[in-house]
Amino acid sequence: MHPLTCAANFHILSSMNSTTRDGAKLALALHGGAGTIPRAQLNAEREGAYRDGLQQALRRGWQALSDGGTALDAVEEVVREMEDNPLFNAGRGSVFTHNEKHEMDAAIMSGKDLQAGAVAAVSGIKNPITLARRVMEQTPHVLMCGSGAEEFAREAGFEIAPPEYFFSEFRYEQLMEARREDEVRLDHSSVKKFGTVGAVARDARGHLAAATSTGGMTNKRYGRVGDTAIIGAGTYADDKTCAISCTGVGEFFIRTVAAYDVACLMKYKGLTLDEACEQVVNVTLREMGGEGGLVAVDHAGNVSLPFNSEGMYRAWITSGSEVQIAIYHD
Amino acid sequence: MHPLTCAANFHILSSMNSTTRDGAKLALALHGGAGTIPRAQLNAEREGAYRDGLQQALRRGWQALSDGGTALDAVEEVVREMEDNPLFNAGRGSVFTHNEKHEMDAAIMSGKDLQAGAVAAVSGIKNPITLARRVMEQTPHVLMCGSGAEEFAREAGFEIAPPEYFFSEFRYEQLMEARREDEVRLDHSSVKKFGTVGAVARDARGHLAAATSTGGMTNKRYGRVGDTAIIGAGTYADDKTCAISCTGVGEFFIRTVAAYDVACLMKYKGLTLDEACEQVVNVTLREMGGEGGLVAVDHAGNVSLPFNSEGMYRAWITSGSEVQIAIYHD
Repeated sequence: MHPLTCAANFHILSSMNSTTRDGAKLALALHGGAGTIPRAQLNAEREGAYRDGLQQALRRGWQALSDGGTALDAVEEVVREMEDNPLFNAGRGSVFTHNEKHEMDAAIMSGKDLQAGAVAAVSGIKNPITLARRVMEQTPHVLMCGSGAEEFAREAGFEIAPPEYFFSEFRYEQLMEARREDEVRLDHSSVKKFGTVGAVARDARGHLAAATSTGGMTNKRYGRVGDTAIIGAGTYADDKTCAISCTGVGEFFIRTVAAYDVACLMKYKGLTLDEACEQVVNVTLREMGGEGGLVAVDHAGNVSLPFNSEGMYRAWITSGSEVQIAIYHD
Repeated sequence: MHPLTCAANFHILSSMNSTTRDGAKLALALHGGAGTIPRAQLNAEREGAYRDGLQQALRRGWQALSDGGTALDAVEEVVREMEDNPLFNAGRGSVFTHNEKHEMDAAIMSGKDLQAGAVAAVSGIKNPITLARRVMEQTPHVLMCGSGAEEFAREAGFEIAPPEYFFSEFRYEQLMEARREDEVRLDHSSVKKFGTVGAVARDARGHLAAATSTGGMTNKRYGRVGDTAIIGAGTYADDKTCAISCTGVGEFFIRTVAAYDVACLMKYKGLTLDEACEQVVNVTLREMGGEGGLVAVDHAGNVSLPFNSEGMYRAWITSGSEVQIAIYHD
């Protein structure tokens, strides 16, 4: 389907459902990763496919919100949709590790009660975001990692997908390329190949939620965990302030506690969502060289989607406004 | 050695070295875990052993600071000392997991440049804090977990200690007890057996650092990771505000992003270190039921050691003041 046709259809859907009974403002924003996205490599067909993927995910989450679903359900639905789409670096489309495996991270947080769940470095899980939610809802823990998290998944009845499910020629080629580059770039490993998916939402009851999922960095080693699974760094939600999902070079988001920093600038310094996001993404992170961006929604349903990289795959919609899908700054 | 004798000796040491050439205030605070520490179980001999351990660790870090060492060196030295002491739940004294293994977490952060390193769920590493520092200084990553982190350790030349190194009859009995309790407490697993070690310091150049290390919870399963390894939750340092090391029920410290919250209350709301610590430990965490405490030092060398649990093993010293060692609120 042509992306514009698809957008038009979706616009109708959005308009039909944008007003809730109590007039509360619904909001949904998502991202499919940020970074260097060379325009030359993104031909019309490929761009159309990404836009379709973003829109399909937004549609699924918006449908959930419009049907009276919770923000938590909506962000999980959005992220599941993107985890199932081989285009995005999460779930099925996860990049290869150095050892030709897939190690995924995911986190989810509920702004209503500050409950959170996360998994790190898990293999064979089709939808890590749903496993993260299970950790949140069915255990006293927040974060489980590696083989232990996989043991929990098996006991919780999660289907373990075979390696073929996660295989794609495109991702494998990325690994081969990264390996070749490593060989000739011993002194500087400046290759930035990263991607993440994430969503934030505000539901009709005014509750916020955030969810993030990633396959991490191509060619990663040593059980490296980025910001995605770290509450406060890549994922955060609190009804009193905002819900945040980040994407970028995870280490910088961890060191700046990026997601929670946005919330603190709002609650302790009185900044608006836009001001707080601008400060974190375009001042704090930029000054450190931390490339990336985030999607955010605040308690009033305002959305913000700042990034300091060349592009960020993103889409958003709020009650009464049109669907927006974008990749670059324009 | 009797603890009081030891304290007296140490006091002399402290007084001799308390003034730096530029008059900058040195400060060092450490903890050996917080929680329910029944006075009945802590007889004089055992209490003396704990106090000796705290003092020995403080002495080692203070010596480093007094010799002109960095805050980073001091907190690593303190934590190494406590990791080597079987009394504390970190390194050698780590508790048993459900599978009769030891899975340790550690993190270190430099306030000078916001560099950070951490490892989660690693086995066989004598001093996880030193591995965390290696991650910080020799890789572009912040967090490594599980077998991947162990692979990194082997390649970095870390000695892998055999299981016997970490074995103690006392810890094994704790596991057996926890298992028995699990069997008869199917509906509520309210047993709180946790411990952590950590340190914060300010050096003569005004730089801050924080380090935390733990064996986690007795009988833990599923690769559970607590707040220790999470930058912003259990460990944080920034020269502009403070350095923090937490101990307690990790999940609450993750959900409240406790360590970074103290820093944010200072930099965005203008609270003093004491006020910020009080807010986080005795208001935010307490209201959620998050038992534990933290040790903190600010940019001016003030220290704060709040806890909302029955006790917290702790010790601290600043230029010109005496060594303080305490367990309960008195």
